Amino acid sequence: MSKISVMVNGLPGNVASTLIPHILADENFSLIPASLTGPDTLEEQVSCCGVNFSLIKPADRDAWISDVLLKNSGLVAIDYTHPSAVNANAIFYAKHQIPFVMGTTGGDREALSESILQSSTCAVIAPNMAKQIVGFQAMMAHAAENFPDLFKGYTLRIEESHQSGKADTSGTAKAMVRYFNSLGIPFNVDAIEMERNPERQENVWGIPAEHISGHAWHTYTLRSEDGSVCFQFTHNINGRDVYARGTLDAVSFLRQKMIMGCKGQVFSMIDVLKG
Amino acid sequence: MSKISVMVNGLPGNVASTLIPHILADENFSLIPASLTGPDTLEEQVSCCGVNFSLIKPADRDAWISDVLLKNSGLVAIDYTHPSAVNANAIFYAKHQIPFVMGTTGGDREALSESILQSSTCAVIAPNMAKQIVGFQAMMAHAAENFPDLFKGYTLRIEESHQSGKADTSGTAKAMVRYFNSLGIPFNVDAIEMERNPERQENVWGIPAEHISGHAWHTYTLRSEDGSVCFQFTHNINGRDVYARGTLDAVSFLRQKMIMGCKGQVFSMIDVLKG
Repeated sequence: MSKISVMVNGLPGNVASTLIPHILADENFSLIPASLTGPDTLEEQVSCCGVNFSLIKPADRDAWISDVLLKNSGLVAIDYTHPSAVNANAIFYAKHQIPFVMGTTGGDREALSESILQSSTCAVIAPNMAKQIVGFQAMMAHAAENFPDLFKGYTLRIEESHQSGKADTSGTAKAMVRYFNSLGIPFNVDAIEMERNPERQENVWGIPAEHISGHAWHTYTLRSEDGSVCFQFTHNINGRDVYARGTLDAVSFLRQKMIMGCKGQVFSMIDVLKG
Repeated sequence: MSKISVMVNGLPGNVASTLIPHILADENFSLIPASLTGPDTLEEQVSCCGVNFSLIKPADRDAWISDVLLKNSGLVAIDYTHPSAVNANAIFYAKHQIPFVMGTTGGDREALSESILQSSTCAVIAPNMAKQIVGFQAMMAHAAENFPDLFKGYTLRIEESHQSGKADTSGTAKAMVRYFNSLGIPFNVDAIEMERNPERQENVWGIPAEHISGHAWHTYTLRSEDGSVCFQFTHNINGRDVYARGTLDAVSFLRQKMIMGCKGQVFSMIDVLKG
């Protein structure tokens, strides 16, 4: 199979930057040394992993992309930009028939889908690119749908730890609460126990020192009324590599769909998991 | 709703005995003070929770049951007997149109199903009556079927602890291995780590002293190749109360199905979970 040309938009942001070494190390991909940026960016270039990326402003991008597409047929875009850019970027990708993986959250999600459905390109839209987490959520959704009240009478405790810069409660944990509710456990998202203290993260939780600044640890503990049964589900993620891996799997999936002739379709990570 | 008449066969066996206090404490059930037994039993009675149960031998049971059924319409049988009795008991229940919950393992399982399908009664057949475990297995089965290779590249560790009298490896853990294989992890059942040492169970595992003689603890740990992701699933059961609860839920489910006019149907615990 020939290499897939990829452009990463959102440099020098954290998640976008994490992708670069993975793409460079993977022989299935070739990287475009440029990245879409906002109108207010002052820099013209940014360096990452020894590669200089040209930063392309909105006013310049239509002219610029035509040239890129001539030399890189089958280009796939990855978007880890900003909520305010989500919809304009989607319209840009659609206009130029560039399939894209939208990892940026926020914006008008309905308009986002609509701009793909009416286009001749396709996209994977996913608020969480960690395939295994998405798979676990699908398992929970399956149980919630098919086995209402499976855990009726059980108590639930949810503990999560993230880097201290994350102010809000884990979105993954909040999504999981809905499933537990369907499974018969009354539980409010306010009861999720958040840990943001680096000292406790290292000494009580045992989170490796090098990941105190970037991790997502979750534990759900269910106990039966009489205390005789205990279930515990844990998913601990250190760093952002798992999101990079999932993003690249989504790129490969999308390229395959385009080769098969798909047009105007919106996919989720569940579709990527199903392969 | 009127009470459901229940007979428990397999007294004074461990699991059958565990059921008695649950049935006596539950106002939805009324208990027949008798239990089917094998041809070689010497005792004529057995006492459990202050109730004297007549032990009914195979030669006497046809005459005996006719009288019981006259006084207890809607009787449901629970079978926790012996592998060698499974098929003869099923034929007996079917002949007398008694719906039954078969918790006994072994025997000819195909013949077991056949004897129900050709009868005008119904049965719940389940090797594991713990509803939450069955539900978790169904979640895993769903993932294995829909997301092949979700955990490709991950390593797996399975640890289980049971009372020292249990010689073989956990059947639940072995069943789970098949799902993990489908999810992309090569793993042989021989690699399941068994704990049967009471001292380590108490001091290393933290299993309550009163449950060293009867417990089923399982932990599955999955780690990504680069070590950045860890998933852990644990289900710890102390004592046998959870199986009793599940068995009685199966009885209620079966009674409902009979009232609805079902005939010749075999149900699983998954059907009971779906309600």
